[in-house]
Amino acid sequence: MLSDGRYDVQLEQECGWLERVIRPPSQKIVPLTAEVLGKQSHRRLAIEAGNLTLESVNVLKSLRPDVVLVETTEQVETLRQVKDEYELGLIRQAADLAQRAMTQTMSTLTPSTTERQFALDLEIAMRRDGADGVSFNVIVGFGETGALCHYRPGDRPLADNESLLFDWGAAFGGYASDITRTFHRGQPSDRFRAAYDAVLEAQLAAIDAIRPGAEGSQIDVIARGVLEKHGLADAFLHSLGHGIGLNIHEGPRLAEDSVDTLEPGMIVTVEPGVYFGGDFGIRIEDDVLVTQDGAEVITSLPKGLDDCRLML
Amino acid sequence: MLSDGRYDVQLEQECGWLERVIRPPSQKIVPLTAEVLGKQSHRRLAIEAGNLTLESVNVLKSLRPDVVLVETTEQVETLRQVKDEYELGLIRQAADLAQRAMTQTMSTLTPSTTERQFALDLEIAMRRDGADGVSFNVIVGFGETGALCHYRPGDRPLADNESLLFDWGAAFGGYASDITRTFHRGQPSDRFRAAYDAVLEAQLAAIDAIRPGAEGSQIDVIARGVLEKHGLADAFLHSLGHGIGLNIHEGPRLAEDSVDTLEPGMIVTVEPGVYFGGDFGIRIEDDVLVTQDGAEVITSLPKGLDDCRLML
Repeated sequence: MLSDGRYDVQLEQECGWLERVIRPPSQKIVPLTAEVLGKQSHRRLAIEAGNLTLESVNVLKSLRPDVVLVETTEQVETLRQVKDEYELGLIRQAADLAQRAMTQTMSTLTPSTTERQFALDLEIAMRRDGADGVSFNVIVGFGETGALCHYRPGDRPLADNESLLFDWGAAFGGYASDITRTFHRGQPSDRFRAAYDAVLEAQLAAIDAIRPGAEGSQIDVIARGVLEKHGLADAFLHSLGHGIGLNIHEGPRLAEDSVDTLEPGMIVTVEPGVYFGGDFGIRIEDDVLVTQDGAEVITSLPKGLDDCRLML
Repeated sequence: MLSDGRYDVQLEQECGWLERVIRPPSQKIVPLTAEVLGKQSHRRLAIEAGNLTLESVNVLKSLRPDVVLVETTEQVETLRQVKDEYELGLIRQAADLAQRAMTQTMSTLTPSTTERQFALDLEIAMRRDGADGVSFNVIVGFGETGALCHYRPGDRPLADNESLLFDWGAAFGGYASDITRTFHRGQPSDRFRAAYDAVLEAQLAAIDAIRPGAEGSQIDVIARGVLEKHGLADAFLHSLGHGIGLNIHEGPRLAEDSVDTLEPGMIVTVEPGVYFGGDFGIRIEDDVLVTQDGAEVITSLPKGLDDCRLML
């Protein structure tokens, strides 16, 4: 384990069985790597091509021209895709923390609540309940801002008759959860209602197809096909889902160009969405465990349109 | 501007003057880049070697063997080192938010406050006051955990007689502040007192040397020299400081191996620290603007040992 003095004591405590080499402040990590390699007899080094920058590779090559660099891709990430029971337990807890916090925070929502206030209150609720933090910055989009997938919550309060998109998750014990729900205050338009039902139909169809041996591309195509049937394929601007674990985004991918095949123990998000600039966005997302013979949805907040209508 | 559908509306709003090319969900960003290059007459492309992964470079090369890739380093980051008045104003506000929140949160500290509670309360205070969020996860280290530079706040309450290390900052308008203070509850030991005074002396000497034309390596050496004089050089486990701006860590660097020269408008942290595993850590950090003829410290919380003694 190559590191620097800031992490020495912590490494001793958390993984003391590893041999540590600690660089001084005057040395960077790649030259330290080269120095350690010089003391080894190995002449082939695997490097993760998707994580190492070109600059780091260049420095390493110049310092150790005698070592052959073998490019690998996602060796560790691939191992991590299948979760064991311990990991699954932590992800279930991260999901519970996120769900409890939403139920609690929704009960405090008033017509004057702003996107930013709600996001902060939701985060505080998760952290006070024991979450290490958010697994990513909470997304809150009222009305037309729900159509901006990565908008930061603003100072906009809720209008009389509009939608509310929440995408949030908790971090717990190093693991992440990731959920999206779309609510509506007042009477939804026919357009909103039709789009909501189509997204939910797409999500349920995709979840229904999740089982060991299914391909990530195939699950995406199923959801995309449902939206296409409803004339909404062009409004689905992203891929269907991704694995969660130590990272909020990891393998396997549910996407048109995915080459991943599902296996028992993988946990993926299933999150179809449609976005209408200047009007509204709808996304419904759950975390789904691939079981021995199918799938288990580990998030459980209600998601029918009638469950998601707010009377304020 | 190459992006995907999730960012299309936001890009239109925030930088509508840029020509946008939006990839579909089935296409990744590097193949899109190759496609756009194919429609251009340019045959030389600058790539940031410290940001692009080896994998991205390999894909780009294979898709566009006709384009010469010219490796560059920190072209944009170098431009960003010198802040204009608008940027300076935002950093000053980020610093004020961080300082007000600390003053407010310190007044609520009790002997039963845990590291984790304090970190959360400090963050909430910043965000309620208008910060976009923290500029990095708040570090709170009571007693010996103050010696672990990157420890996450734990469930440990404050003991009768020990030190408290806080490293925190606010994000505001996209810009970051970054401050550290070390407090002490009860009577400090002679060892703590001597180390505290040495760190403060090192920080003040370094700040005093900051002016246009000074080298980042030279400023680090000055602080390191003061600590060496007090027999503490081995306990100073990191470099002296870094630029702040849109990122919490950017150029210029104050470090033994820095090649940066200070210019008016740069803003750097000055943060010497000493760490004694199993006992305590001390770090004192301010944000310092390089002016036309010297330096201005833009953070202003008191930092004398007597100012930092807590009577609880």
